[in-house]
Amino acid sequence: MTLMQPLPGFRDFLPEDCAKRNYIFARWRRVARRYGFVEWEGSPLEPTELYKKKSGDEIVGQLFNFTDKGEREVALRPELTPTLARVVAAHEREFKKPLKWFSIGQFFRYEKQQRGRLREHFQLNCDIIGENDLAADIELVALCIDVLRTFGLTEKDFVVRISDREFWTGFLRERNVPAERWDELLQIIDRSGREPRDKTAEKLGKLAEPVFATLHSGGKSEKLDRLIGGLRARGLADFVQIDVGIVRGLAYYTGIVFELFDRAGKFRAIAGGGRYDNLIAQLSDGAVSLPALGFAMGDVVLSELINEIPRAREAMQKAVASDRKIDIYVVIAKEERRADALAQIQQLRDRGYRVDYPMTPTKVARQFQAAEEAGAALALLYGDEWPQVKVKNLPTREESLIDHGALLDSVAKFFNVGSSA
Amino acid sequence: MTLMQPLPGFRDFLPEDCAKRNYIFARWRRVARRYGFVEWEGSPLEPTELYKKKSGDEIVGQLFNFTDKGEREVALRPELTPTLARVVAAHEREFKKPLKWFSIGQFFRYEKQQRGRLREHFQLNCDIIGENDLAADIELVALCIDVLRTFGLTEKDFVVRISDREFWTGFLRERNVPAERWDELLQIIDRSGREPRDKTAEKLGKLAEPVFATLHSGGKSEKLDRLIGGLRARGLADFVQIDVGIVRGLAYYTGIVFELFDRAGKFRAIAGGGRYDNLIAQLSDGAVSLPALGFAMGDVVLSELINEIPRAREAMQKAVASDRKIDIYVVIAKEERRADALAQIQQLRDRGYRVDYPMTPTKVARQFQAAEEAGAALALLYGDEWPQVKVKNLPTREESLIDHGALLDSVAKFFNVGSSA
Repeated sequence: MTLMQPLPGFRDFLPEDCAKRNYIFARWRRVARRYGFVEWEGSPLEPTELYKKKSGDEIVGQLFNFTDKGEREVALRPELTPTLARVVAAHEREFKKPLKWFSIGQFFRYEKQQRGRLREHFQLNCDIIGENDLAADIELVALCIDVLRTFGLTEKDFVVRISDREFWTGFLRERNVPAERWDELLQIIDRSGREPRDKTAEKLGKLAEPVFATLHSGGKSEKLDRLIGGLRARGLADFVQIDVGIVRGLAYYTGIVFELFDRAGKFRAIAGGGRYDNLIAQLSDGAVSLPALGFAMGDVVLSELINEIPRAREAMQKAVASDRKIDIYVVIAKEERRADALAQIQQLRDRGYRVDYPMTPTKVARQFQAAEEAGAALALLYGDEWPQVKVKNLPTREESLIDHGALLDSVAKFFNVGSSA
Repeated sequence: MTLMQPLPGFRDFLPEDCAKRNYIFARWRRVARRYGFVEWEGSPLEPTELYKKKSGDEIVGQLFNFTDKGEREVALRPELTPTLARVVAAHEREFKKPLKWFSIGQFFRYEKQQRGRLREHFQLNCDIIGENDLAADIELVALCIDVLRTFGLTEKDFVVRISDREFWTGFLRERNVPAERWDELLQIIDRSGREPRDKTAEKLGKLAEPVFATLHSGGKSEKLDRLIGGLRARGLADFVQIDVGIVRGLAYYTGIVFELFDRAGKFRAIAGGGRYDNLIAQLSDGAVSLPALGFAMGDVVLSELINEIPRAREAMQKAVASDRKIDIYVVIAKEERRADALAQIQQLRDRGYRVDYPMTPTKVARQFQAAEEAGAALALLYGDEWPQVKVKNLPTREESLIDHGALLDSVAKFFNVGSSA
């Protein structure tokens, strides 16, 4: 291990990568807020017990967990839902229900690195708390679809596969399978699409045949029909598909579950979620009981899909390039004018413009080059013309001389009217 | 330890707290970008060696460090500078110098909790890499001041205390103190303001008298004079004060150092930074040598100061309240109209409006109450008037009936002209 690299599975975000990450965050935030969701954030470090207590084993084996200097068993959060359940159970009385909450943060898993799967990633989490009605499930799936649409992705690029855990618990109940085996069997069904049929069959025993038959027939339920109907009313039916093979690995789901995939089947799931109506009660030892549902969308697979689809990739590149531009580059042609230039730079920045300049004496041609590279709309030249300042519109190459006392007004006029900045 | 609370020293951000945090982040980002800084982000988990190798002992004793499942010694980052030095050493050839980089992220220290000091906090880090000239120090201090000014804070509320480590290394050299003792002595001088004079005197031995005399006289150097001159040219001289008692605890500083305090002396330092010209070379074992300087500003003490100063607190409250508003609340007065309403909700959200509605049948009066509470500018009522929609301007109480086919245009006109939204 060299000190010059980040840890395996961890990323540094150099400016261009950071701009792309921020592009994703900004759109996540924007769409969640269109849906009336409000932002919150939990602690990134939690008692390990929070995950041991109620999550599936899949997660617990892959925690970044350790004993802190106060002898506490703690873990970097692998997911947000247990934290949300904890926070809601502690604070629910402060808020009218239903809560519509979203959060953008970093999560950690110690696992083998593979494509689309690092040891850290960022997630958008959107949750609705305190609403039993299927309308909430529809609202949540619609939000998940619209988040993807805002990146320029269409129903040709991705699909939400939707199922209902109650479909399977009904199936197991009918066959008199004891409830304590349901979690295990649901996880086997969940993995059936990703492992050889023989292996799944062996695990399922005499349930293998009916399970495979049901997976093959696709499954159907009145609740799933109503869900699709609700999405159709919003014009989103083309984005979804019933697929009872979707069960989700986590033990806490209780109802509708869904996963979002690229249509080409090239990547891992882009998002996933569902109802977890019992989790808040479980974590609060019954003190607070509220129905809940939510989804999480990671940045890694989403970035891969955006890069794969030209329309989405170009929209990102354009937004990132435009966002990185400065407004004004100040060219200091005579060092005698540096103090005058700096006084005006301060005034321009105070008014909100992004302004850069050379910190040391630099040839004028190189300063103009720096201005172009920074994407400045205007260059202001401080030199022999003083007390006038030469103002150059960089895209059009037009120049004019403005008295330095009138400069701020002149710049304001420029940015209010003509420019693309 | 109850599972219902975050770990000691860690925060959850409920929606209002999160909005305040985002208010701070947005202003940090905005001012850094006015100065031509570009955003980046490093890994939050690093090899412990990165901190052991070159930082002062003060930090290493307080790390959240552990052995991961791959037998790596790792630590949650306590500060960004070693990561920055690592990233710059690995990637500097990709960028023209000087780099002006900023970052907003979370940092961790295992230490006794006290006012303004948790076990996690968020920091703005701003660094300039590859510029030896004092102009960079001036630019950095000016940025630090302007970040505070953007919160409505003035020279009456805070002050930047500035010193120069070279002032003290010169002092020690003149007195023939061997260089290997300098770090230790600088840390004693750094702490002298926070511990009894006797204790400092004992540690300093025969250096006590000249050190106290220098601290008392205030110290002076040509470099510090030039620094103040540069800030005066920008109109920022009233925000700074030379104070050679400022040394900074970290071992890696080499030149100008500064700390930002509230004028009333009520809080811990709000920000601190300085030059660390040797750190990149040290961390890269000499492979890359670049002068560098930077500062970090934490969110915890800054929040305390904003809450202390009425002007700043009110500006924050106003921005947070306005930011949380939705644009439109859709009132569903007849359940028969729900599907029609949802179709238009989808269209409105597609156009970027923040829209909310009741997910289940709800009394009309309660829906209007929800609209008011969410700060909506418009309510759209779907009921007996269909195919017309009743449009209510909530602040003015004006109502009109609009055919549902003309609704989107009508809403667009409303938000382009009259509203405060």
